[in-house]
Amino acid sequence: LKVFSLNSNPALAEEIAKHIGINLGKSSVTNFSDGEIQINIEESIRGCDVYVIQSTSYPVNKHLMELLIMIDALKRASARTINIVLPYYGYARQDRKARSREPITAKLVANLLETAGATRVIAIDLHAPQIQGFFDIPVDQLLGVPILADYFKTKQLEDIVVVSPDHGGVTRARKMADRLKSPIAIIDKHRPKPNVAEVMNIVGNIEGRTAILIDDIIDTAGTITLAANALIENGAKKVYACCTHPVLSGPAIERISASSIEELVVTNTIPLPKEKQISKITSLSVAPLLGEAI
Amino acid sequence: LKVFSLNSNPALAEEIAKHIGINLGKSSVTNFSDGEIQINIEESIRGCDVYVIQSTSYPVNKHLMELLIMIDALKRASARTINIVLPYYGYARQDRKARSREPITAKLVANLLETAGATRVIAIDLHAPQIQGFFDIPVDQLLGVPILADYFKTKQLEDIVVVSPDHGGVTRARKMADRLKSPIAIIDKHRPKPNVAEVMNIVGNIEGRTAILIDDIIDTAGTITLAANALIENGAKKVYACCTHPVLSGPAIERISASSIEELVVTNTIPLPKEKQISKITSLSVAPLLGEAI
Ligand SMILES: Nc1ncnc2c1ncn2[C@@H]1O[C@H](COP(=O)(O)O)[C@@H](O)[C@H]1O
Ligand SMILES: Nc1ncnc2c1ncn2[C@@H]1O[C@H](COP(=O)(O)O)[C@@H](O)[C@H]1O
Repeated sequence: LKVFSLNSNPALAEEIAKHIGINLGKSSVTNFSDGEIQINIEESIRGCDVYVIQSTSYPVNKHLMELLIMIDALKRASARTINIVLPYYGYARQDRKARSREPITAKLVANLLETAGATRVIAIDLHAPQIQGFFDIPVDQLLGVPILADYFKTKQLEDIVVVSPDHGGVTRARKMADRLKSPIAIIDKHRPKPNVAEVMNIVGNIEGRTAILIDDIIDTAGTITLAANALIENGAKKVYACCTHPVLSGPAIERISASSIEELVVTNTIPLPKEKQISKITSLSVAPLLGEAI
Repeated sequence: LKVFSLNSNPALAEEIAKHIGINLGKSSVTNFSDGEIQINIEESIRGCDVYVIQSTSYPVNKHLMELLIMIDALKRASARTINIVLPYYGYARQDRKARSREPITAKLVANLLETAGATRVIAIDLHAPQIQGFFDIPVDQLLGVPILADYFKTKQLEDIVVVSPDHGGVTRARKMADRLKSPIAIIDKHRPKPNVAEVMNIVGNIEGRTAILIDDIIDTAGTITLAANALIENGAKKVYACCTHPVLSGPAIERISASSIEELVVTNTIPLPKEKQISKITSLSVAPLLGEAI
């Protein structure tokens, strides 16, 4: 068993290795002068079961190519199995043709990983569970909900209601609510007539309650902060929010700071650079979860 | 027949389209807020023979992913054939395992292009002609030498000697010399003993002659500028240099400016950004060459 880290998430990789009780494999991933990726694996891996830890988070194209080149190198060095640990699966939202002539990049990425030589994938909260079917190799999907729920349990909040910010997330909200023994509510955005502003209708009882919004990915944070404000306007006492994958691009941090969200709880599937480590955000580790799976 | 451009070389793509006498296909290649690539093909291509023009030059990983995602979108939109025009093939220098446990990224890239759905490749001066064999689809390789040679003919230089800066480039130098009806010489770098400085021996007669150094890629320009200085020290009258692919990374521009190279002649397989457009560098267009091939 050998575990290698690439450049997206070295702190998480270290933590996972510590959890398993081994040292990370020796390798270097650098750039040639022209920006091409140069990978050197600095110990023999012949016949080994190799795990590579890499989130295809920002900069996604670079991190994906690092992963593909690493897989190629491992394959040519006669690894027995090449197990890809993808705490965050980039391009997961491009998982269907919503319009004509769109790519399905989540499927393309699956094909690229298999072509390079991956033999198994371990991922956390794929944006759509159907992405498992994009692969012809085994895919293990782990869930972030238990980690997030356990954190909220320690806060001992009362009169909780778990809220899905859209129709697509209701199943996830239900899983969270089961663990917190709470009811659920749904933000039911809809447009009463064409060319009329969207209405934020809330399905479920939130009045006087502590709401916990849950999503899989928070990217620009538009959806989640609008949802939080709607909850407060409609009588929620306090609003917490949580997600597995803190993409937090563009105006996200600004929006979260300015919103009525009390605290945003995320995991370290995507590391938070310094400028995103604001006091409102709490980051939980997925290292034990991944360590168990490896 | 439809020709699409991606983001690496839009000016060359326009020129090629003009040469063929058509308009470029309508598409947009932008980024989502988190840096993921978003591609929209804005006209029907069902049943068409589609050509996509993209150099996988800096930033190579982004340009390669643009290309792969575009191929995926074209495939799903029922293109009849998907022909990839790669004026510059990035990662071409990683074409063999020089050491243990190295990747062979040039082969990986070939596999990725085929997996995405490419049906044919047109490239110019692949770093090694063996790269054609990395593909199971047709690969047409075009040559930069005729374009470079024609330019030097118009300069009507006298007493020319074409010089290869290393052992690997002698065949290319011979092709150039045939067109200029000149002799050749070779910079024969070698290490007399281990741990002793390299010696720049020149094989061939260069004294009093106008030397034209030729290479396929000039990257950091170390090799070519050292060669130029060695030629002058050994009695060459003047030194010109040329290459097909001006990668010109890191200290390249500084080195070329400071060197004894009179003029560096390149092609536009890789566009030169403003800061690299110095008066010593002349860029010739490969648009007619590619236009004929399409
Ligand atoms: N990186 C991205 N950022 C924002 N939107 C995206 C991204 N990738 C895909 N999409 C779009 O998001 C939609 C899928 O989102 P969802 O409805 O949450 O599954 C698709 O229609 C895509 O066009
Ligand atoms: N982008 C790059 N920049 C510099 N050197 C590279 C690059 N890609 C591969 N190489 C190295 O260059 C060598 C091949 O160069 P060559 O001998 O000119 O074919 C290989 O041993 C590679 O390790």
